[in-house]
Amino acid sequence: MDIIRIDDPGDSRIAAYRDIRERDLVGRQGRFIAEGKVVLDVLLDSIRFRSESILLLENRLPGLSRILSKASPGLPVYVASGPVINGITGFHMHRGILAIGRRAEETTADRLLRSLPERALVVVLVGIANHDNVGAIFRNAAAFQANAVLLDRTCCDPLYRKAIRVSVGAALKVPFATFDTETTLATNLDSHGFSRLAFSPRGTEDLRHIRRTDRLALYFGSEGEGLPTELLATMKTARIPIAGDFDSLNVAATSAIALHHFTVGDL
Amino acid sequence: MDIIRIDDPGDSRIAAYRDIRERDLVGRQGRFIAEGKVVLDVLLDSIRFRSESILLLENRLPGLSRILSKASPGLPVYVASGPVINGITGFHMHRGILAIGRRAEETTADRLLRSLPERALVVVLVGIANHDNVGAIFRNAAAFQANAVLLDRTCCDPLYRKAIRVSVGAALKVPFATFDTETTLATNLDSHGFSRLAFSPRGTEDLRHIRRTDRLALYFGSEGEGLPTELLATMKTARIPIAGDFDSLNVAATSAIALHHFTVGDL
Repeated sequence: MDIIRIDDPGDSRIAAYRDIRERDLVGRQGRFIAEGKVVLDVLLDSIRFRSESILLLENRLPGLSRILSKASPGLPVYVASGPVINGITGFHMHRGILAIGRRAEETTADRLLRSLPERALVVVLVGIANHDNVGAIFRNAAAFQANAVLLDRTCCDPLYRKAIRVSVGAALKVPFATFDTETTLATNLDSHGFSRLAFSPRGTEDLRHIRRTDRLALYFGSEGEGLPTELLATMKTARIPIAGDFDSLNVAATSAIALHHFTVGDL
Repeated sequence: MDIIRIDDPGDSRIAAYRDIRERDLVGRQGRFIAEGKVVLDVLLDSIRFRSESILLLENRLPGLSRILSKASPGLPVYVASGPVINGITGFHMHRGILAIGRRAEETTADRLLRSLPERALVVVLVGIANHDNVGAIFRNAAAFQANAVLLDRTCCDPLYRKAIRVSVGAALKVPFATFDTETTLATNLDSHGFSRLAFSPRGTEDLRHIRRTDRLALYFGSEGEGLPTELLATMKTARIPIAGDFDSLNVAATSAIALHHFTVGDL
């Protein structure tokens, strides 16, 4: 690691950090933004993701020596004052810890499923565009040791800055893949011996009465719309009973309850 | 209800809506801001909270007739174009549905506890300053029919705009009160026959093995810090087992799992 002082927000070496709030699209150029101490720690531990550089508020450097000792030799660690960092990022960065990560090569759902152990729990997300929800679901997936998250093309990218931050780095830990159609995914899951279970307020069985199978895929849909009726018709459906006069459970809360239920004895 | 067209963002009749993002303190003047269709619906249904006025994007009016029919006679419903609304609120209001609510008189934890039924579940929050977490916990509390939420003085106000929005109106449904000291609250809970249970990653019993008592108070602490050690020492503590190498569960996810666990058979 190589500590470099930055005094000019216009310095071309920190161009990747410029105006990060406006363009969460850094990820689209093969990169993503990691924010905060815990996420940086996860990134530097990651085998899948490589860090390209780190940008720190000068006063954060001393408190990070343990974490930074994991950085690969030669990794640039840019250090700047508060006003310079704010000038670079375009907003007040009270955390003062940022890193640019390099996206790993995308895997397919099929390849990912093939890599899983005999006993495996998979989370399938359909139409979840909200960064907070995707981040929170990844956090729950990591906490309950789900083996993979599979997302349809309308879900938010788990490597968006805010999704990574809300996931407390879990988006960098839990393997994920995007799938093209629900039909192909169902065929894949079937061929790999996964039971499929969909969560819906209109689900037919109370979650409490559903037993774990060794290989299980849990489907969650977006707030509001929920999983499409046609999709619900293709598999067993679970319901988490709630008060009759209340709107619905948040999808991340649903995933926490579901994952907790199906990991009895595994943790 | 009284539909009034507003063409000037400076109109004094809609002063309460001005720059709402900057000052979430509207609540501190005895008022709060309700945002979105579901929250407006909850507000107009509420017995505890009264609405002072509504401000709508003009094109939202037709879709709200069912909800607006519940408004009390004479309630001003201000209607404005997009640019005028943005000029009033200071940011782009894509929902286009706002209302000013009047805070109810604050009750005390003791008075609130006295009003609860024989079988009751109470959520106690200590040091939870994050609006999203407080909102999400209220949403879970409403979904699982908790009877009350009690907050210490360092928690975020449940009637902050964002907390109400994240709660999907639950902050207006589930009765709450603020308490001064943990010692007084403990005495109150004891005298009303409540068992107390604290959630902590260091809790001694696995949640799955803890049985419901008729009157039960569940304590949750802030992310990071968690509940203070001195407080944990005063009551039974529960743990939700998670993967050993992962940081922790989000406090709202913890509340979802806990409330779900303790409402078996009640919903």
